[in-house]
Amino acid sequence: MQKRVRELGVVPGHLPTGPLNAITDVPGVRVGHTTLDDGADLHTGVTAIVPDALAGDRSELPAAVAVGNGYGKLVGSTQVDELGVLETPIVLTATLSVFRAADALLTWLLDRDPAAVSLNPVVGETNDSFLSDIRRRPITEQHVLAALGNATAGLPDEGCVGAGTGTSALGFKAGIGTSSRVMATGVVGVLVQANFSGVLRVLGTPVEAPPSDREPAGNSCMIVVGTDLPLESRQLSRVARRAIFAMGSVGSDYAPGSGDYAIAFSTSPGGRLPDKQLKPVFQATMESVEEALLNSLTMARTVTGYRGNTRHAVPHDLVRAAARRG
Amino acid sequence: MQKRVRELGVVPGHLPTGPLNAITDVPGVRVGHTTLDDGADLHTGVTAIVPDALAGDRSELPAAVAVGNGYGKLVGSTQVDELGVLETPIVLTATLSVFRAADALLTWLLDRDPAAVSLNPVVGETNDSFLSDIRRRPITEQHVLAALGNATAGLPDEGCVGAGTGTSALGFKAGIGTSSRVMATGVVGVLVQANFSGVLRVLGTPVEAPPSDREPAGNSCMIVVGTDLPLESRQLSRVARRAIFAMGSVGSDYAPGSGDYAIAFSTSPGGRLPDKQLKPVFQATMESVEEALLNSLTMARTVTGYRGNTRHAVPHDLVRAAARRG
Amino acid sequence: MQKRVRELGVVPGHLPTGPLNAITDVPGVRVGHTTLDDGADLHTGVTAIVPDALAGDRSELPAAVAVGNGYGKLVGSTQVDELGVLETPIVLTATLSVFRAADALLTWLLDRDPAAVSLNPVVGETNDSFLSDIRRRPITEQHVLAALGNATAGLPDEGCVGAGTGTSALGFKAGIGTSSRVMATGVVGVLVQANFSGVLRVLGTPVEAPPSDREPAGNSCMIVVGTDLPLESRQLSRVARRAIFAMGSVGSDYAPGSGDYAIAFSTSPGGRLPDKQLKPVFQATMESVEEALLNSLTMARTVTGYRGNTRHAVPHDLVRAAARRG
Amino acid sequence: MQKRVRELGVVPGHLPTGPLNAITDVPGVRVGHTTLDDGADLHTGVTAIVPDALAGDRSELPAAVAVGNGYGKLVGSTQVDELGVLETPIVLTATLSVFRAADALLTWLLDRDPAAVSLNPVVGETNDSFLSDIRRRPITEQHVLAALGNATAGLPDEGCVGAGTGTSALGFKAGIGTSSRVMATGVVGVLVQANFSGVLRVLGTPVEAPPSDREPAGNSCMIVVGTDLPLESRQLSRVARRAIFAMGSVGSDYAPGSGDYAIAFSTSPGGRLPDKQLKPVFQATMESVEEALLNSLTMARTVTGYRGNTRHAVPHDLVRAAARRG
Repeated sequence: MQKRVRELGVVPGHLPTGPLNAITDVPGVRVGHTTLDDGADLHTGVTAIVPDALAGDRSELPAAVAVGNGYGKLVGSTQVDELGVLETPIVLTATLSVFRAADALLTWLLDRDPAAVSLNPVVGETNDSFLSDIRRRPITEQHVLAALGNATAGLPDEGCVGAGTGTSALGFKAGIGTSSRVMATGVVGVLVQANFSGVLRVLGTPVEAPPSDREPAGNSCMIVVGTDLPLESRQLSRVARRAIFAMGSVGSDYAPGSGDYAIAFSTSPGGRLPDKQLKPVFQATMESVEEALLNSLTMARTVTGYRGNTRHAVPHDLVRAAARRG
Repeated sequence: MQKRVRELGVVPGHLPTGPLNAITDVPGVRVGHTTLDDGADLHTGVTAIVPDALAGDRSELPAAVAVGNGYGKLVGSTQVDELGVLETPIVLTATLSVFRAADALLTWLLDRDPAAVSLNPVVGETNDSFLSDIRRRPITEQHVLAALGNATAGLPDEGCVGAGTGTSALGFKAGIGTSSRVMATGVVGVLVQANFSGVLRVLGTPVEAPPSDREPAGNSCMIVVGTDLPLESRQLSRVARRAIFAMGSVGSDYAPGSGDYAIAFSTSPGGRLPDKQLKPVFQATMESVEEALLNSLTMARTVTGYRGNTRHAVPHDLVRAAARRG
Repeated sequence: MQKRVRELGVVPGHLPTGPLNAITDVPGVRVGHTTLDDGADLHTGVTAIVPDALAGDRSELPAAVAVGNGYGKLVGSTQVDELGVLETPIVLTATLSVFRAADALLTWLLDRDPAAVSLNPVVGETNDSFLSDIRRRPITEQHVLAALGNATAGLPDEGCVGAGTGTSALGFKAGIGTSSRVMATGVVGVLVQANFSGVLRVLGTPVEAPPSDREPAGNSCMIVVGTDLPLESRQLSRVARRAIFAMGSVGSDYAPGSGDYAIAFSTSPGGRLPDKQLKPVFQATMESVEEALLNSLTMARTVTGYRGNTRHAVPHDLVRAAARRG
Repeated sequence: MQKRVRELGVVPGHLPTGPLNAITDVPGVRVGHTTLDDGADLHTGVTAIVPDALAGDRSELPAAVAVGNGYGKLVGSTQVDELGVLETPIVLTATLSVFRAADALLTWLLDRDPAAVSLNPVVGETNDSFLSDIRRRPITEQHVLAALGNATAGLPDEGCVGAGTGTSALGFKAGIGTSSRVMATGVVGVLVQANFSGVLRVLGTPVEAPPSDREPAGNSCMIVVGTDLPLESRQLSRVARRAIFAMGSVGSDYAPGSGDYAIAFSTSPGGRLPDKQLKPVFQATMESVEEALLNSLTMARTVTGYRGNTRHAVPHDLVRAAARRG
């Protein structure tokens, strides 16, 4: 049975979590999934992170992208860099479906804004070809609209759902994970699409993974960070870099072929926290990323997919044992 | 009748052109167009720049992107930045069709490489909504495949064709333009999709443009630079920046809403010219961009399109007169 | 006799200037120079741009650096990038003296803030070795403190003064130039240390320069942009890029060996203009840079310096003639 | 007594070290130190990393800088970014002395190249003000020339020497550390100037540090990576980023006030390893950084300095204990 890592007695960091321990602890942030799992060749899907402010007619929120390793096909980055804003929900999916997903997000946006002739959808991706027939490009417009449409403010499903249905990390089956941290001044929430190589570490202690020779090293990790703190895009860039740095805490080897990106946004359009007050924000971000990545693993289940390839879920006993030693 | 600017007696710069005075003077570079012009609401299309080396099974060429103003939806930039290579032909089209074009380019690539599970299509765009019903997203996979398929090594069509069918620049109808310069060591060729605001200058002298109040300032300009000189990606980044700088020579106002990008690639996969020898390469690039932009204007014709909007071609007499004064 | 270019009947652009047509039209911005001219081997100096807000005990202003061509030794850029602020006056000097100047700026700052243990001086440089014995590193702490100390709010001296004493541009003797533009919402002021290659253009029309074979191509151009508009650092980065783009308007060839940088700062620490309102700010910046660069030339005089090298001032008749033709 | 961490039974990673387990295992790389320790207010110094190729008359090596957190005063970064080369030895020192060190490096270079009028010294710094009177700026030209002059190819001194004399990391006294890894294709060597906050981890297991309330969080970490593998600057940028990522392995909290930079260079001026072969290079880099950082701690000794401040060396028993648990 899948469990969140905290249910296994593993508590990364020191800051308290929000009530859901999820990105949806950030007020006004919702998450939706569409899962494609035919029990055979297709294990893929779509995950949508929807800030309410971007779901009505058009608006924008401060945002920034950090590129840990640009070997990926993230859609929308140059305009986020230039203008420092997010105009759309963030959609995650499989590598070769990223443009169909971006086009579907356009459909969703054009419906909401009858005058728009220029929009900057943000869509991230990772490569799930080990468990899913990625070349079939199975994601349709309906799948994307469904994920956007079913986005809710509750605890998001984790593990083998949505854009994480077919992903793997650190030698084990992984998927979607989420977590949050609360400070006096606000909340930081994280959602990850975990799919990268390395040796799993739990609170610093390595866990022996089964051999995974058949999978090429690296794949990609997408990290989404939301907060209600008043941060401008330059500061969110600093936050997003810490999200990348935190991948090492669970054992990422930052392989050359893994497109690792973080995108951070603030739901607070005005104001600005002084940079000197960013230290707890960085801490909250790194703790949330660590726990979200662990959740993406412990909430996953063993999957046999494309070409009979199998990826095993991490045995919870190994996680508990590593945590005890650390 | 449309004429290339050199036929009007206007000769930008000092270096000699290649035989075609086009990007196709770079050996192994072909260009194809698909034009959508229904005489009414649709004036748009696709232009493909196809290096032979990328048209067989998979290969890659040194490349770099320069972002003059990131208010655009260029697909593929982070991976070009990270790996310094172009994996695919470059496709240009209209803003809201950019993801359909990228997905179509994937189709073309997947057909050529049966093992590929990760590809980085590069697709640029500008906004042609003044003359074309951009929200209809009329570009289909067939349009993109046709542009790739009909790419030839001859002189590319210019003006109101392909991705330039509905674009405007400096108050006049513009479109696609191309030019080249030859040095002892190699050739530099440029192709532009011109679509930006400012006051047209011919060899430095301003040309009075008709009022263009109905069009929002800025739109975007895509510049493609090819060369057979042995340049690594860092050097191509330097070249690509000069392509952006050269937009000023024809009067660009570098408006905040214009997504201006240049992408430069070398067909010479190995070796490296010393940086000290880049000065003529920069000059060749800037001269080619200036002339390609002028060609995109003088080769265009007056077009009435979406909602009855009209954009006039620049009167050739004005171009000649400005050149005489300068 | 030296004249500002406007006195020659040359009026770049359309926006009105401030009362001084100088960077000192930005309220609270002062400029000081120290000039070293021994009539023989030394033609160099220091120019200081001093925002009042940074001249008392420590404070900071929003700021950004744009790197047009990073072949230079600008001190302080990574921290400006990271924190988006300027902590110190901006000092300009000669290439090999840049670190002595930065250290002198530290002296000035440490005196003002008895608790400071970390400071980020910003010092730009260009190479004046054609007219001055640069290897002697003649700039002392006293020279820098003098420029900071004599900074005033009046019209700064232009031409062969301060950091421009030994510089050249576009084949002629150049130096320091300044200009400003006023909008309803605020003022933009520019100061340049001009030192780069190309063919001089006046309002777009080329001016025939004398042969300058003995000088290596390229050198460097430093551009400082100040404004009282409420802009955050990301927006100032957009402004600073336009300052680089404007170098082309006077004929820069953007040579590979010329370290061209712009630094923009706002004296308005809070608030933020919407990006959609940046178009006139970009225009004001580009017009001011064009005029400041022309002033740096027309306010210069012919100088014979190191090793008997001579650099001639641009004949005012040529400037007037070019302007008439354009 | 000081010991290298490997002597304590701690072996980070899996790759073999070079014979010295130091950056000097890279053929042609030498290291020199000047230590200022008056037993009272001054605990600071200079460390020079000298590639032989840059110590004769002028040459250059491929190089790149990665900015983990740009809150620092690294000298020379924009030109390294632009040209992709290192022209000079790398010097490390204390924050407020960085410009005097850069000027001294100019002296050293001007002596070697009688024709040079433009040079790009690279000097990094961290803030040692807790143990040393940093405002006195005690580093002189002689100190820098001495470090350059005494550079040798043997095992560099580690701990409280050179630029690490007064630094601290993770709550303990730190300083200089070095390490290397050997692959079939070449060697990677690392030298660090460690000075940053967080909670020390040994092979992933946290070590309880004494309270260090008196020191402001964050300070800066400089990491130098050398290799004899044929890597171009773009690839060295990828390597340098991994050096930053590896700081997390020993417990860095990536605090907002810590200027964390890595600079990587290759002593192999030509050729280029395919990017697909970078995975072991990244691993070698991250393992070397982890071990170099640990060496900087276990080779340090307890120091009482400026204002009677004391920073304790990490007890070796704690290191051994943590390693046993992990």
